[in-house]
Amino acid sequence: MSEFEDALTLRDGEFPGSYAVDISAGWTIGGGINGGLLLATMAKAMSDALGGRGHTEPLAVSAYYLSPTRPGLAMVETDIARQGGSSSTGSAALVQYADDGRREERIRAMGSFTDLSRLPTEATTRLTPPDLPPVEQCVSKDDAPAGSPVPDAPLLERTDVRFDPASAGWAMGQPSGRGLIQAYFRLADGQEPDPFVLLFACDALPPVSMDLGRYGWAPTIEFTVNVVARPAPGWLRIKHYTEHTAAGHFVEDCQVWDSEDTLVAQSRQLARMPREPKA
Amino acid sequence: MSEFEDALTLRDGEFPGSYAVDISAGWTIGGGINGGLLLATMAKAMSDALGGRGHTEPLAVSAYYLSPTRPGLAMVETDIARQGGSSSTGSAALVQYADDGRREERIRAMGSFTDLSRLPTEATTRLTPPDLPPVEQCVSKDDAPAGSPVPDAPLLERTDVRFDPASAGWAMGQPSGRGLIQAYFRLADGQEPDPFVLLFACDALPPVSMDLGRYGWAPTIEFTVNVVARPAPGWLRIKHYTEHTAAGHFVEDCQVWDSEDTLVAQSRQLARMPREPKA
Repeated sequence: MSEFEDALTLRDGEFPGSYAVDISAGWTIGGGINGGLLLATMAKAMSDALGGRGHTEPLAVSAYYLSPTRPGLAMVETDIARQGGSSSTGSAALVQYADDGRREERIRAMGSFTDLSRLPTEATTRLTPPDLPPVEQCVSKDDAPAGSPVPDAPLLERTDVRFDPASAGWAMGQPSGRGLIQAYFRLADGQEPDPFVLLFACDALPPVSMDLGRYGWAPTIEFTVNVVARPAPGWLRIKHYTEHTAAGHFVEDCQVWDSEDTLVAQSRQLARMPREPKA
Repeated sequence: MSEFEDALTLRDGEFPGSYAVDISAGWTIGGGINGGLLLATMAKAMSDALGGRGHTEPLAVSAYYLSPTRPGLAMVETDIARQGGSSSTGSAALVQYADDGRREERIRAMGSFTDLSRLPTEATTRLTPPDLPPVEQCVSKDDAPAGSPVPDAPLLERTDVRFDPASAGWAMGQPSGRGLIQAYFRLADGQEPDPFVLLFACDALPPVSMDLGRYGWAPTIEFTVNVVARPAPGWLRIKHYTEHTAAGHFVEDCQVWDSEDTLVAQSRQLARMPREPKA
């Protein structure tokens, strides 16, 4: 079983629709567990709770982040909203318990699930895949110079990210100010992408605020991913960018393209702009 | 009291955090009540439930649409997820009851609320306001020719929308195929915009699928609005567009700009592409 599948392995909880999951410290980045990995975990729980009609694949998933998730046991409490003909919709809360027994809700999410194989495959787009050099000309975290602002985090051992050198100045302490980070992405242990991996991939690159010269923690308020196709095997290409910063927040967009030049997922998150220029 | 304020007027429900609201048929369009008006109504309920810390204005609101809302009584059941220092987050369900007493959930939503006056006002953007001719050179529903595919709906009496002639071919049965509709927008009774009006404005224009030549009903799966500034009084300008259609759905983006050229709200929805070319 891959590390990613292991992370999404649920046990039945105490009540119908509740699940227990062990959150591994291996997915830690910045101040807590990666938000995309947790979104995928919650989506897996909603998929399981809703899946009776074959609606097991995420079509749209949204989450509001309430407090940092810690490694260890978590409960995902799901609730079915509607089971329809072509999609089913539910919600979920990811909950942990403090040492004193207090219930702490970490994330609240909703999602619609479908059977992508039963939807039309035709697509029309005005968007173009990120213009990246061949993967062997891109740079990985191992290429970062000493003293680089790239964080050293367990998550980076589980992902294989190759950054476009033309948008990697932020990793050398020279952010471009454009708010653009592009990269190839795959899971380090070789698991091929699927719709749940796409939920993670949309949040797997560093926040684009780093390319604006803000290296601090950028907590997510809201994050929505649309999965619009099953990904082909191979490298994913990710375009992560912001077009708008306002009210102390930034709107971060992400496109994920597969190895056959198909746009397979799009996401947007509203995140709080780090207050300090440097971490 | 304006028609919009009247629509958002809540009475206390039977339980703490639950509200009763009368849904007027005046907000009907297509197959039901406008989804943006209902999002604003649910946001008002969440704002009221969460508002103890002055976090009364929507910052991000997301909704999943489950079944068409009918005119008449509805209940909005809210739940507080977190009351924080700079924002508070909750969720809500909009519920109606069938003639046989069966509970029917119409919409499930989440949202984060803040005090926009306490957030930084600086903004940087790569986006530009829609390029519209002066409002008196734009066209209203009253200019639509006989036999126009523009629907005749009560909602259109409550909004004053002036379409850019350059992106209004769809209203004459000549869709451009670009998936772009731009317009000036205000409430017909003169109420000035506020953050709740922005939630409505993001869903107040016809679906851009009409400009793709698909005039049928385009049910929304998921809809998220980010409010990034309080709007100045006067006309709003709306750019409503799609860049991607796949898996039988389309991703619809919306930008709302105020009279001072500030981007005040951005939204995205995933909607099902109408199957028939003509309604």
